This record gives sequence, C-alpha cells and structure tokens, in this order.
Amino acid sequence: MKIAIAQLNLHIGNFEGNLAVMLRAVEEARRQGADIVCLPELATVGYPPRDFLEFDDFIQLANHSVGELAKAAQGIAILVGSPSRNPVPEGKDLYNSAYFLAEGRIQFVQHKTLLPTYDVFDEYRYFEPAHEWTVFEYKGRRLAISICEDIWNVGNENPLYKICPIDEMMDQKPDVILNISASPFAYDHAAERIAVIRANVERYNLPLFYVNHTGAQTELLFDGGSVVMSPDGQVFDELPYFTEMVRTYDLGEVMRGGVHREQTRDKMTLIHDAILEGIRNYFRKLGFKRAILGLSGGIDSAVVAVLAARALGPENVRVLLMPSQFSSDHSVLDARKLAENLGIQYDLIPIQSVFESYSETLKPHFWAHPFNLTEENLQARIRGMLLMAFSNKFGHILLNTSNKSEIAVGYGTLYGDLCGGLSVIGDVYKTEVYDLARFINKDAEVIPENIITKPPSAELRPNQKDSDSLPEYDELDPILFQYIERRQSPQDIIEMGFDEATVRRALRLVNINEFKRHQTAPVLRVSSKAFGMGRRMPIVGKYLA
Amino acid sequence: MKIAIAQLNLHIGNFEGNLAVMLRAVEEARRQGADIVCLPELATVGYPPRDFLEFDDFIQLANHSVGELAKAAQGIAILVGSPSRNPVPEGKDLYNSAYFLAEGRIQFVQHKTLLPTYDVFDEYRYFEPAHEWTVFEYKGRRLAISICEDIWNVGNENPLYKICPIDEMMDQKPDVILNISASPFAYDHAAERIAVIRANVERYNLPLFYVNHTGAQTELLFDGGSVVMSPDGQVFDELPYFTEMVRTYDLGEVMRGGVHREQTRDKMTLIHDAILEGIRNYFRKLGFKRAILGLSGGIDSAVVAVLAARALGPENVRVLLMPSQFSSDHSVLDARKLAENLGIQYDLIPIQSVFESYSETLKPHFWAHPFNLTEENLQARIRGMLLMAFSNKFGHILLNTSNKSEIAVGYGTLYGDLCGGLSVIGDVYKTEVYDLARFINKDAEVIPENIITKPPSAELRPNQKDSDSLPEYDELDPILFQYIERRQSPQDIIEMGFDEATVRRALRLVNINEFKRHQTAPVLRVSSKAFGMGRRMPIVGKYLA
Repeated sequence: MKIAIAQLNLHIGNFEGNLAVMLRAVEEARRQGADIVCLPELATVGYPPRDFLEFDDFIQLANHSVGELAKAAQGIAILVGSPSRNPVPEGKDLYNSAYFLAEGRIQFVQHKTLLPTYDVFDEYRYFEPAHEWTVFEYKGRRLAISICEDIWNVGNENPLYKICPIDEMMDQKPDVILNISASPFAYDHAAERIAVIRANVERYNLPLFYVNHTGAQTELLFDGGSVVMSPDGQVFDELPYFTEMVRTYDLGEVMRGGVHREQTRDKMTLIHDAILEGIRNYFRKLGFKRAILGLSGGIDSAVVAVLAARALGPENVRVLLMPSQFSSDHSVLDARKLAENLGIQYDLIPIQSVFESYSETLKPHFWAHPFNLTEENLQARIRGMLLMAFSNKFGHILLNTSNKSEIAVGYGTLYGDLCGGLSVIGDVYKTEVYDLARFINKDAEVIPENIITKPPSAELRPNQKDSDSLPEYDELDPILFQYIERRQSPQDIIEMGFDEATVRRALRLVNINEFKRHQTAPVLRVSSKAFGMGRRMPIVGKYLA
Repeated sequence: MKIAIAQLNLHIGNFEGNLAVMLRAVEEARRQGADIVCLPELATVGYPPRDFLEFDDFIQLANHSVGELAKAAQGIAILVGSPSRNPVPEGKDLYNSAYFLAEGRIQFVQHKTLLPTYDVFDEYRYFEPAHEWTVFEYKGRRLAISICEDIWNVGNENPLYKICPIDEMMDQKPDVILNISASPFAYDHAAERIAVIRANVERYNLPLFYVNHTGAQTELLFDGGSVVMSPDGQVFDELPYFTEMVRTYDLGEVMRGGVHREQTRDKMTLIHDAILEGIRNYFRKLGFKRAILGLSGGIDSAVVAVLAARALGPENVRVLLMPSQFSSDHSVLDARKLAENLGIQYDLIPIQSVFESYSETLKPHFWAHPFNLTEENLQARIRGMLLMAFSNKFGHILLNTSNKSEIAVGYGTLYGDLCGGLSVIGDVYKTEVYDLARFINKDAEVIPENIITKPPSAELRPNQKDSDSLPEYDELDPILFQYIERRQSPQDIIEMGFDEATVRRALRLVNINEFKRHQTAPVLRVSSKAFGMGRRMPIVGKYLA
C-alpha cells in the first residue's frame, strides 16, 4: 500500500480556494501512485476557523467541500479534516472530524478526542470530544486514524487528558497510525513534535504518518514538517518547512525502516524563514501587495525592513525616514544606507514642523507644564500618522517594528510606534533581534554595522537611551523569558540569581501594560508563548501590578 | 437554619482587597445571625482571572486567602469559590472549586463540573471537570453545592453537556441547592437566569440559593441579581442589580414560599446602569479618576459624556471640542450646550492649523492625488492625538465613543476616533444609542434636542452624512443583530425580508473589518454578543469577505 501525505497551505474560510488546493494535491498523489492521500486537520475550512464555526452556513459550506472531495475519491482514497455535526442534542454541536473518502463517497468518520484548549487553542469552545474509536480497514490494512492532539497525550509526565485515544483502538489491531494535524510553529516545536511521534511509535510499535498545515493565518505560523516514522523509531522522512508538498511512501518500506532523514534546524534560520512566511501569507490572504514602515536608524526597523523586502520583494516595500530635532545624524545616514542596500524606496520627511504646529495648538493649555512624556509620545504619534497617511493614500500595509521586550514592558507609544497591521518581530526579544541581524548579515553587510553596534535609543529627547528607562536587555530578556514563557514567580526568578528590584520592576511593567497589548497588531508567533491570542490577561488585573 | 448570600464586587488578582471585602461580608452575615454565608465563584481571585491561573504563585496566593477565610469561619460557616490543585497528574492542573469552611478549617470541597467554554468563557482552558459529587451535611441540613454553569444544563432543548451534576447528587437526598456564580450581565440575562433557576427548582423540588458577583472587570459587567427561590418556583428574593449586599434568609421561610419579589427590569435602565458601573469599576480598579473625550456635537459622544459625568462626577470629566473646516456651526454650539448642561470642563481646539501643517508636509508626496479618505482619516487622527496629548499631560483616560453599528462595519478611523482606553457604547447599536439618549432625557433635556434629531454625520468632508456610506441605521442594525447576536446566514437574513444587496454588503463590511476591531479598546459588554473576548474571528478569514 502506498500512502501520500499532502502538506498544504490553506486559507480560513476560503472554501473555493481550499478545495482547489486539495483537489490538486489529490491529483498529484494519484500521479505518484498513492492508494490513500492524507490532507491536514480541518483542511476544508483552514485552521483555526475560530467563531466562524458557530455559523451553520459555514458548516454547510465545509460539508459541500467534503462532498466535492468525495466525488474526486475515485481510484484513490482521501483522508481529510473537516467539522461535522453532532447528531445528538447533548454536548457541543460539532465534532472535529477526519473523513475517509473512497469510491465517490464518505466511507468512515473518526472524530477527534483530545481537544486542545490552552495557549492559542480553543477547540473545546466548539467541539465535542469523540467517545468511540474504530479502526477502519481499507485494502486489507487496518488504519488507526487520529487528529493532531490525539497523539500528544503519550509520553508526558503531566498529561493534560485522562485517556489516549490510540490506546482505545489497540485491541482492534491496527497496522498503521495516520495523524492529520494543524500544529503551529514555534522555533523549538519540531524537536518536540518528533519526540511525541516517537513516543507513540514506541508505545504502539506501529508506523506513523503525520501531516501538518504549512503557511500562516494572521499570527499563527505553520511550518509543515510532516513526518513519516518507522516502527524502529527512525524518521523515515520529514518534509521541508514552510513548503507545500505531496509525497508518497510505500508502507512496506516504511515498515522496514532503517532510514533516517531529518531537516536541519537552526533557531535563527527557523525564525527568519517563519517570519518571511508570515508576512507573505498575511499579505496574500488579505489581498495586499505592498508594505510601508518607518526606518528610524535603529536595529528593530532595520531588521523588519530586511524581512519585508525578502518576503515581498524590494519593489513592494517603501520606508519613511522621519527625523525630529532629537534624531542623530547617523540615524538618517544609517537608515538611508540600509534602504540603498535593500533597493527599497525611501523618503525623508522631517516631523519638526508638524510637531511645532501641535505645540502651538496645545500651548494655551500646556504652557505651564514642561516637556515630558507627552511630547515624546507626540513625536511617535506624528510618525504613526504620516505612515498611516501613506498607507491610506497608496494602499500600503503598515508593518509594526516593536520587539517582544518593548511590547512586554510597554516601552512604546500607543497609536504611535505601536501602529501597524502586523507585528513582524513582536515575538522576538531584543537580544534575539541582534541575533537575527547578525544572521541576516552572515554572508554580506545588509544591515550597516553601525545599526547593530550603537546603543538602543528611541531618540525622543536629547541623548535618550533605552537603558535610561529600562534594565539592559541582556538582563531584562532572561527575566521576561522566565515570566512569560515559563510562568515563574518573582521569587523563583530572584532565586535564579537576578536582582530583586529589577525582577519586581520588570514584572510590574509587564502587568500594568496589558492595556497597550490589547490594542496592538497581531504578532507573528515564533516562540511557544507569544503576546496575542495565546496569552489572555485581564486588563484591570492587580497581580504583581 | 439561616443562610446568607453575599453579592460582592471583587477585583482580579487583588488578593488583599478581596480578602478584606470577603471578611467584611462574613462579619455582616454573622451580625445578621447567619449559619452559613455563601460568597461568589472564584471570589478569592476575582472573575475571570484568565491566564493568571497558569502561575503557580497566583494559586498559592488564592490558597492563602482560603486559609485566612477558614480562620474567620468561627461560629459561622463560609462557602467560597477559589481554584484548587488537581492532585493527580492526569488532566488539567486545577479545579474550579467551592470550599466549605467551618470551625477554623476546610471541611469539604466540591469541584465544578460544567466548565463554560464559549463566548467570554474559557474555563476548560484551565480547569478539569469534577467527576465526584457529594452532598455535604452541616447542622443537620444536606447541602447540594454547585458552581454557576453546574445548574445551567437543566431545561435546555440543546444542552451543552451530557450530564447535570445535581442529578448525580439526588440519591444523597439533599435539602437545599447552593449555587455560587460568576455570571456576566447582558440586558436580557436576568430573565434567563430566573428561568434556569426555576427549571432546577422544579426538577429537584428543592429551594435554591444563588449568589453572583457584582461590579465589573474591564469589559465584563456583573449585575449581581442574586436569587433565592422557594420550592414553589416563586422568587423569594432577588437582590438589586449592581449593588454589593449581604442578606440572610431563614431556610424554613424559604421552604414555605408564597413570596415573590423580583427587581423591575427595563432594557434602557439596565444598559444605563450597567455602563455607569462599567466606567466606575474600570477607573477605580486601574487607579484612575478622570476621563477625557472628544465632543463632536453628534449623539454618540453626547451620550458618552453624560454617562461619564454620571459615573465619575462632572468634575472628573473633561471634553475637547475640535472643529475642522468641515464642522458645522451647530456642532460646536450643540456640544458646548451639552457641556454646560453637564457642568463639565470643555475646551475649543480647532484642528485646521495642524491639518494644514500635515498637508504641507505631505504635499511633496501627495500633490498628484485628490482629497480622499486619507484626509478624512487625518482629521480623525489629529483629534485622537490631541486627546491623547491631554491624557498624557494631565492623566485623563480617553473614553472611546464608537457605537456597535460603526464598530461592526468599520465606520471609524483606526488611531483616530477608535482611540481610547475603554469603549463605553461599543456594544450599543446606533438605534439603541438614540433610545439611550431619550432615556437620559426622560425627565429633563440633558442632551440638546438638536443632537438627537439631526442626521448622523462624521463631518470629515463637506455635507457628509453617514447614509452616504452606510445603509440607514434602522435598516442596518437589525441585519447586524441577526448576524452578530443570532449567527444567521446571509440567506436566512434575506429570507426575513431584508434587501439582498444591503445584507451582503453589511456582512462583508463586518468581516473585512476584523483587523480594526483587533486594535480597539475593550468594549463594555451589555448584550449577549459583544465585540471583544466573546467573539473571536480570524483576521485573514475569507468567509463572506
């Protein structure tokens, strides 16, 4: 028996587009001689469909796609994920299901059992868990069909669920485990994924075919990295990251094993490629082509400009250099040098006259009060407004250039430098932004060296440095990581050796700035805990605040 | 036996403050002669604690509060909600629990079974459901202890869950049902709540004591409306809305029944009072006193100004009148009249000179392009920036004045009139804003009549009217209601008699403007489906877009 896996880039709610993508994949698998082709979880609707699932009409459209795929299942069987209705009144109205289609019709449906409801996942919001598990026989092979999380409860010290669905199938003596997934990217996720697949293969002594989404849906990135594992625990194949691909395997060869092929994994390569994919997908899926951003001469906007130019092409990226009276000469020079290196359009627009016009307008009210944060914010907001004016006039999407450290501690101006449709490096700590800059420069100096080496500054008042307001980033970032990614307490973090006052101040800044994060752009998620849909905090919360 | 219910306003993560509030309630119940006092669900931590629950340190602090309450449980028993740790590795790490405290220690713990995970609720994100149900005997009475949703699966045609936890307790012959809740307000919620309580009383033939939170946590409002129901299905008592209160009942009298006391319920009274509570709580819980907003002369900002002045006191509200060259004379006159009626500080700040300064700065780039949406947005953004400058300089919180109809169809400028820390009427459709204005004016003309009667206009270009860009609101709002609150399909809505082109255009506008809603302020939730945490949509989604 030959089994194909189709690692596809789908688009939430784009039924027509998704059906076309899936039908092409089926054709390709047929051409490769596959008996079965496995498409990803909820492939008909894209992942995550979120509250669209509450619309009955949306489910009808998904059912229509399943029907069309069934018609195409002639001479080849198709395994595909799609929502299905729960026929009994008790429980949630839907299941997250895997349809097995052959000979022009639905042959079998297995529902998902383990419904991830943590971090970015909300599946129990919509779906009833399966309570029946059937091994389905096709062409003499007994298939244990599972959906994503169904295999993730194996091999954990602190399992999230009480049962493992494949356990429930083992007395039906399956020959192979198929798993259709929608498992988002994080820079440390691929290793974890392979460990989980191996834990299943070892527990059940069966080969496992795992197929994942690739591409991105707003903030959520999918790397693919689909895996075929032999019963010997070796990776028979791992598909390349961020690439659509259909590949067919002979089950006999997979059973024999003895082959090991993994993708190379380097943190900065992964983050770099993931962000390019995120930018490209955001623009393509929303129907936009061109991006704009402000280039300050600092490292954050420099890195974002490079990533945007690589993702969209330099001809589709435009930057504004918007010096104020507090900008240093080198900022403009460095920014211009970078724009020239990248071959992107740049314009110099000094903001001083607009700033003066605001000052004049506000003078009758502000005259008794000295220059302070208000005027710093004003500069940031003038820049945001100019960028949005270009965005409105010429149809560019504004890219946000804030990094994760700044977003964490609220070092940014709401409606100013926090503007933008998409936060490109909002899940990359400042120290990692430097790593990314060096990665970008590994073969040639794309980002002028001076941008990388000068001390970080917002340049909103004379001689300002980030370190006037914040701890040094190499002290701050590890504290933020322990709190955000690892959910450690202040006491735990202090016991790791960090300065107590710094820890308490950093955590307080994180917690009192929830209101800013509530209003910022979606952040391309590259870590296991990004700001946005995967981290849900009360705004009026008083904890550590 | 005497049972007290304590309807309290708690604050997420404010352990010290919450403990003080609860201890005062216990003292009051003791003074009233109660044997048991029932405090709300998750009262130690406030509701909803959201991802704070993932911090082990946060759970330790909650446990500490339970310990302190146990010490106070001398001569009186306390039933209180708090998270508790799941002692086994399998399943989620926490339970949502009701602690029964007496004689200085924890006597009994019942966990919550039904974990709402829909709309604004995420409980399965954190909690394992109960799988044991024990009736607890205290002073000769057998108590069936339940938590909020545990009683909500009774009496539904399409129940969300497979079991009803009180069913599981009935063979232990309870005498009374206690329910501690955190059930958010919606203008139609109180009637539904009483129907659910009645369905339980009738099914089990037992009296029921239901205690709810009051107050607000950012967008979520809690009206209290705690209920004691006799076995005859009559409302023995319903506590007033949006008021903290401790009240004690003799169980024998409740058993006898024959008393019926409900609060009066009028939609506009409820929405009005709910919004005042929402504003007050947002400011108090974040430690702010004063609000600012832009007064355009239109109805939305007029209503928000009245609500803010009533919630915070006129001395704490400041407004800016910011006419542009397109503002009509009556706008400024009407706005000034309103400010004078309210006795709030107002300043007139024309925006034309700042607008000209932007135009001048942008001329080298925009000269070939005519005045369009860019320049309209520019005016809205200048106003947003001026308001934020006052906010920064003087410590006012900016109130957003967009209504639900505008937010739905994206009729507003990001970083312009969509600025603000809190959206006051973002869950009130435009037609309801008129109702609210008339409600406000019922005894005297607070809002100048001309503000209510003139046609809605953004006044961003000559002679502009909302109806140039949008359907009339009395046609638009019912379509939006059917789509947003009722999740009807375009076909369903058209079949109700609405114009097909209008329906398709309205729904498309809703869906393509998700990116704007992603970046707007939290919206005080007064309906059963508000924008914000209870409505989660993909930004790149293609459905109906």
